[in-house]
Amino acid sequence: MTPPTGAGLAAAAAALAAEAARFAGLGWMRATSGNLSVVLRRDPLRLAVTASGGDKGELTAADVVEVDDAGRLVAAVSAARPSAEAALHARIAAVTGAGSVVHLHTLACVRAAARQPRGVEFAGLEMLKALGRPADGEATRLPVVANSQDMAVLGDAALAALEPGVPAFLVAGHGMYAWGEDLRAARRHAEAVDWLCALAHEA
Amino acid sequence: MTPPTGAGLAAAAAALAAEAARFAGLGWMRATSGNLSVVLRRDPLRLAVTASGGDKGELTAADVVEVDDAGRLVAAVSAARPSAEAALHARIAAVTGAGSVVHLHTLACVRAAARQPRGVEFAGLEMLKALGRPADGEATRLPVVANSQDMAVLGDAALAALEPGVPAFLVAGHGMYAWGEDLRAARRHAEAVDWLCALAHEA
Amino acid sequence: MTPPTGAGLAAAAAALAAEAARFAGLGWMRATSGNLSVVLRRDPLRLAVTASGGDKGELTAADVVEVDDAGRLVAAVSAARPSAEAALHARIAAVTGAGSVVHLHTLACVRAAARQPRGVEFAGLEMLKALGRPADGEATRLPVVANSQDMAVLGDAALAALEPGVPAFLVAGHGMYAWGEDLRAARRHAEAVDWLCALAHEA
Amino acid sequence: MTPPTGAGLAAAAAALAAEAARFAGLGWMRATSGNLSVVLRRDPLRLAVTASGGDKGELTAADVVEVDDAGRLVAAVSAARPSAEAALHARIAAVTGAGSVVHLHTLACVRAAARQPRGVEFAGLEMLKALGRPADGEATRLPVVANSQDMAVLGDAALAALEPGVPAFLVAGHGMYAWGEDLRAARRHAEAVDWLCALAHEA
Repeated sequence: MTPPTGAGLAAAAAALAAEAARFAGLGWMRATSGNLSVVLRRDPLRLAVTASGGDKGELTAADVVEVDDAGRLVAAVSAARPSAEAALHARIAAVTGAGSVVHLHTLACVRAAARQPRGVEFAGLEMLKALGRPADGEATRLPVVANSQDMAVLGDAALAALEPGVPAFLVAGHGMYAWGEDLRAARRHAEAVDWLCALAHEA
Repeated sequence: MTPPTGAGLAAAAAALAAEAARFAGLGWMRATSGNLSVVLRRDPLRLAVTASGGDKGELTAADVVEVDDAGRLVAAVSAARPSAEAALHARIAAVTGAGSVVHLHTLACVRAAARQPRGVEFAGLEMLKALGRPADGEATRLPVVANSQDMAVLGDAALAALEPGVPAFLVAGHGMYAWGEDLRAARRHAEAVDWLCALAHEA
Repeated sequence: MTPPTGAGLAAAAAALAAEAARFAGLGWMRATSGNLSVVLRRDPLRLAVTASGGDKGELTAADVVEVDDAGRLVAAVSAARPSAEAALHARIAAVTGAGSVVHLHTLACVRAAARQPRGVEFAGLEMLKALGRPADGEATRLPVVANSQDMAVLGDAALAALEPGVPAFLVAGHGMYAWGEDLRAARRHAEAVDWLCALAHEA
Repeated sequence: MTPPTGAGLAAAAAALAAEAARFAGLGWMRATSGNLSVVLRRDPLRLAVTASGGDKGELTAADVVEVDDAGRLVAAVSAARPSAEAALHARIAAVTGAGSVVHLHTLACVRAAARQPRGVEFAGLEMLKALGRPADGEATRLPVVANSQDMAVLGDAALAALEPGVPAFLVAGHGMYAWGEDLRAARRHAEAVDWLCALAHEA
């Protein structure tokens, strides 16, 4: 087993705890839901990910653990354990090259996915640029994946549904995954996705 | 009369005042509404419960009192008095074994109960897991109880309507009760109930 | 001219500035809108009222002035001046005996008044008790008054429309007035009115 | 090239960073969107404007730059660069005489513009007075301009659509521009526009 990533994990854990408090303040991590992660190293792949359970508005760095490319626990400074969703964070990071992945339960995302279960389409919206997409011209399709309690099934479906250049997808009845080169970019993409879904729901 | 629970009450009172401020910040305890409680001991049953009146965002530990299994005042460090609803907290704690009960006036709950007065049904939603319910498979029914100004009538109706394994019910035109093994679990269940009701209302 | 109320004004001004910041945080005093007042003395009637203009989230005690029973400036510690609405605060305090009046521009109130321009009726809602009204039995009617730029006209219409025992009214296209024996009671009534209007709008 | 405006820029930068944090807290600058500016001098025209990119809730004074009447960078204390939208800020300031311009991505504005793409009309609303418009009598029309990725095209369209005495316009699928004699007046106008658009959307 590779040794834990040490200082890298500690810094990432502090950043993830602060970011979780921020997202929780927006109401997007209610009832202990959601997870955030950042990539610690690439070869072999290691991520710092928020642990299972616990109010996401009150995490400390001790509530962040290190996992491998299958979401298995590699290191922790407490009894904290990763949730099953850590495996999907790792797969997204591996496939997309993202440095950070966020998973959030926003009402706007669940509502939009329920209305447009085959994918939520957006066009002519300036906010699309925050996702790296054109504000005009071709539409952007935010994939919607069926929810599953089997993370391998959910992961296969999600990776098969990825839209090139779209750093996010929705999970029906569940929430969103968004990612970016770092935690700040993942936050930007998550905020854009929520804003767009809130608009789509009303339209 | 059993002596007051002393240090246990003081610690519980501080926790309840902080929790009330948090729920008030979410807008779920407007106009001094709602109550929170934790069980101090089981035999005989004693609860710490927020007192009647007072802005729930500005309580201090002195605004929490100790009550018995009928919601009667047992001890207080001020002139604070329990509301009539304390009796229902005690009954819920007695029947369900919960260590904490929260009663909140969220708009989402009242709207959902108005739309589905015979019980609000949920299925296929990941958030159900925060209530200890399956995200897929059988639906979860959140009971809706008719409101009453007679707490014995309301309590009888609520206890008769409890769904096994569902740690919450709605009161029509009124709000929600949710509970859990401790205050943190009661919070998690309350947040899940509000999130689910907000979604049900839109559907 | 009666001398300014001195220490009474200073204490009231600090309380009003803090209360305005709280209401502004709820989004109910956007764009410098609304006013808050407390009665300083009864004979002759004197009120401390928030001054015209200025972001209601950033007032200091110097932004509160003393007015008489016609809303005319009696004392101020700065160049601050009362708005024309101060006269209506004074009339409400005189007629109802209230010790505090709050005027807020909440969207929920304006929406409810637009939907039910002859008065918004509520029944079977526990939140009515926060207004001192029964939760069951007879309905409570929240009066809706036509807006006017002539405060004498608006005031006459409002006082003629008052419902006995209902400490609030709505102004169409404008907002709400609510009052109580003190600032805390006025806050409780305002929060109940907003909650009820939010529910009425959806119904 | 005129020398940078020195102390004027530093003070403006601090004020803009604080104001951006405030607007971000309202959810109106999600995903790094929007820009704020203040005029530093008139002849030649110089503005301090928030830089491109960066979470608008976490800017520091170093994230504000000085631009000329075409939105070109004149001075910066960091590697920060203006966004293309700085040119439109400068044009608005030049044409209207405003001392401050704010550009925000509020959902209410985008929704209202989508519903009334030829301009959003308001009448009989007290909040219009916060825009310097009459609450009764003639209606106020908030212009809606088609979005464009060419800031010259967008600027031409916006300036051609300005309504006399209305310190704001909407950009379809994008957001709002509002302005005033100073940053505080621009804030007041922006808050009034959002409130009015939220009401228009529901009507």
